[in-house]
Amino acid sequence: MKNKRIVLAARPQGMPKESDFRLEEVEVPDPEDGQVLVRNRYASIDPGSRDRLSGEASYIAPVGIGELMGAATVSEVVASRNSRFAVGDLVAGGFGWQDYALSDGRGLRRIEDLRVPVSTQIGVLGIPGLTAYFGLLSVGALQAGETVLVSSAAGGVGSVVGQIAKIKGAKAVGIAGSPEKCRWLVEELGFDSAIDRRAAPDRGAAIARTCPEGVDVLFDNVGNALIEATLPHMRQRGRIVNSGQTADYNVAMADRAGLYNTRAFITHRLRMEGFIVFDFANELARARGELTDWILADRLRYREDIDQGVESCPAAFIGLFTGDSFGRKLVKLDDS
Amino acid sequence: MKNKRIVLAARPQGMPKESDFRLEEVEVPDPEDGQVLVRNRYASIDPGSRDRLSGEASYIAPVGIGELMGAATVSEVVASRNSRFAVGDLVAGGFGWQDYALSDGRGLRRIEDLRVPVSTQIGVLGIPGLTAYFGLLSVGALQAGETVLVSSAAGGVGSVVGQIAKIKGAKAVGIAGSPEKCRWLVEELGFDSAIDRRAAPDRGAAIARTCPEGVDVLFDNVGNALIEATLPHMRQRGRIVNSGQTADYNVAMADRAGLYNTRAFITHRLRMEGFIVFDFANELARARGELTDWILADRLRYREDIDQGVESCPAAFIGLFTGDSFGRKLVKLDDS
Repeated sequence: MKNKRIVLAARPQGMPKESDFRLEEVEVPDPEDGQVLVRNRYASIDPGSRDRLSGEASYIAPVGIGELMGAATVSEVVASRNSRFAVGDLVAGGFGWQDYALSDGRGLRRIEDLRVPVSTQIGVLGIPGLTAYFGLLSVGALQAGETVLVSSAAGGVGSVVGQIAKIKGAKAVGIAGSPEKCRWLVEELGFDSAIDRRAAPDRGAAIARTCPEGVDVLFDNVGNALIEATLPHMRQRGRIVNSGQTADYNVAMADRAGLYNTRAFITHRLRMEGFIVFDFANELARARGELTDWILADRLRYREDIDQGVESCPAAFIGLFTGDSFGRKLVKLDDS
Repeated sequence: MKNKRIVLAARPQGMPKESDFRLEEVEVPDPEDGQVLVRNRYASIDPGSRDRLSGEASYIAPVGIGELMGAATVSEVVASRNSRFAVGDLVAGGFGWQDYALSDGRGLRRIEDLRVPVSTQIGVLGIPGLTAYFGLLSVGALQAGETVLVSSAAGGVGSVVGQIAKIKGAKAVGIAGSPEKCRWLVEELGFDSAIDRRAAPDRGAAIARTCPEGVDVLFDNVGNALIEATLPHMRQRGRIVNSGQTADYNVAMADRAGLYNTRAFITHRLRMEGFIVFDFANELARARGELTDWILADRLRYREDIDQGVESCPAAFIGLFTGDSFGRKLVKLDDS
C-alpha cells in the first residue's frame, strides 16, 4: 500500500509556485507497539504555512527541503497498537499533506462530538476558529458596543471574527476581495458592512465611511499596509491584533509595507499584539464547545472550499494568495 | 508688575527654531474671588511638547499661534483668594513658560513632602519619573530577571527607567548620545551597560552584543528606527513601550522611519503599547511616594540641567533635539 505525500522541493522566492512542491510515493509502514496508523481524510491549507517555507526562525521550525508539508488533519484510525485508540476512531492531528501517517498518539485528539461534520475540526473548530475566538476575545479584549474591523474577512479566521463580534454585541466590518464575498459577509453572516478591497483603493477613506465612530479592534490578517491605513481611524485605547500577514508573506523585507504613524500609539494609547493559538492550550476545549453551541444555534456559520486529492494541495495553497479561495480551504484526501 | 511669557509665534517646520517663539510682557492681574496668583519657580522643557506644535490632533489640544507654551511648573502662591491655598504654599501645576499665573485651584497640587528639592516635582517625581514608573511596571509589566533596553537613557524618563529596572532585579541597558552620558549611566546609576549611539551606527549589532539573551522590554523614547532595529532581538512575549518619539517629532510623515518586521509580533508574540501617565491618575500619589523613598535611600538618582530665566525656554527646548541636554531639562524662572 502506497502513501502519497507532498514535500517541499524548493524554497519559494516570493509567490509560491507548483514546482516548489513535489509529490512522492512511499510504502505505508506497519505500526509498532504503541503506535497507530491513520488514514487522513482532510488536510488544511493554511496561509500561515507560507511563513515556514522561508527558512527564517519562527515559533515553529521551518520546513526543510525534501520534508513533508505540515498541515492540520482529520483522520481515521485504520490500525492500532495503542490502547488509547481503536480502529475506526476519528482523530484530529497534524499529519500534513499525505494520505497515511504513523503516530505514537501524542498530540492526537479523539473527536468525541460528532454533532457537526468532522471537517470543522480543522476549520471553524480548529486553529482558524480558535484563532478568531482567542484573538478577538482574549488578545483584542472586545467589549459589547465596540467596533471591530477584520481583514481577509471571508477567510477561515476573519469570517469567525465578525460573527463572534456580533454575538458579543459589537459592530463588525469586514474587508474582503470580491463583491460576492462582501454580500456573503453581510447577508449570510450578519456583518454590519463589508469593504470590497478591489473597489476601494483608498482604504482609509473606506474605513472612515464604514466606521465613522472609529475602530476599537483591528483584527488583521493581511499586514502592515492595512494597519497603517487603519491607524488614523483607531479609537482611544484601540487594540490591533496581529493574526496573519498574507499580503507580506510573499514579499521580501525590503519591499514590505511599513508602519509609520506609530505616533498614534502614544496619542491614542493603542496596543498591538501578536499571538498564536497554542498560547491558550488550556482553554481550547472550552472554546471548541462554545463554538459548537453557536454553530448548532445557527449563530455561527462557516463555508468550506474543499479540493480533492493530495495532489491538489500545492495549487490550493497558491490559490490562497491569489484571492481565489472563498471560505476555509481544505483538501479531502480519501473517497469516504 | 509685568508677567513675561513665551508664546508660539509660528508652527515649526521640522526642527523648531527660536523664531517660532516670541517673548511677551503683559500686566500681572489681581486674583478674583476663588483664585490664587502664583509666581512660577521652575518650568519644564519637554520633548513631548513638540507634538503639540504641529497642529495635528492628539490627546491634548495643539498650541495655537499666539498662545502660551504649556509646561509643568513648580510655583509659590503669592496672593490667594482661595481658602485651599495660603500665601507661601508651594504648588505643582501646569502654568507654562511664564513668570506668573492665575489659577482657580483646579489641577493644582500642594507640595507637602519637602524632603527632596521642589524641582523634582516636575522631574523625577513629575511626569518624566511617573512615565518611567508606570511605563515600565504597568505597561511593560517588567519581571525580575528580565532585560530592559531603554533609549534616550540619560534623559528624564530613561534614566529613571533603568534605575527602576535595577531596583526590581532586572538587567538594564541604555542607549545614550555621548561617552560621558554612557559612563554616567553605568558608573553613577548602575546600568549594566550603555550603548553610545554615535559610536554604534549598527544599532542591531550593538543590541545583540549588550543583550545576547534578548530584550524583554524595549522602553522606547525615540521612535521607529530604534524599534525596527530591536525587533529581531526581542524575546518571546516581549513588550515594546511607546513612550516618546524624539527622533520622529521633527520629521514629516513621508520621511519617517518605518516598522517593517512586524512579522516578529506574531512569531514572537510581541506587544507594543502606548500610554500617557494620566491614565494612572489614581495611582500617582502612591508612585510619587515610592520614588521619593528610593531617592532618600540613594537607590534612585537624578540629574537636572537647569537654565535661567523665561527667555531661555525656547533655546532649551531646541537643545533637546540636538542632543546637547544631559539630565532633566528645566528652566528656573525666579531668583530665589
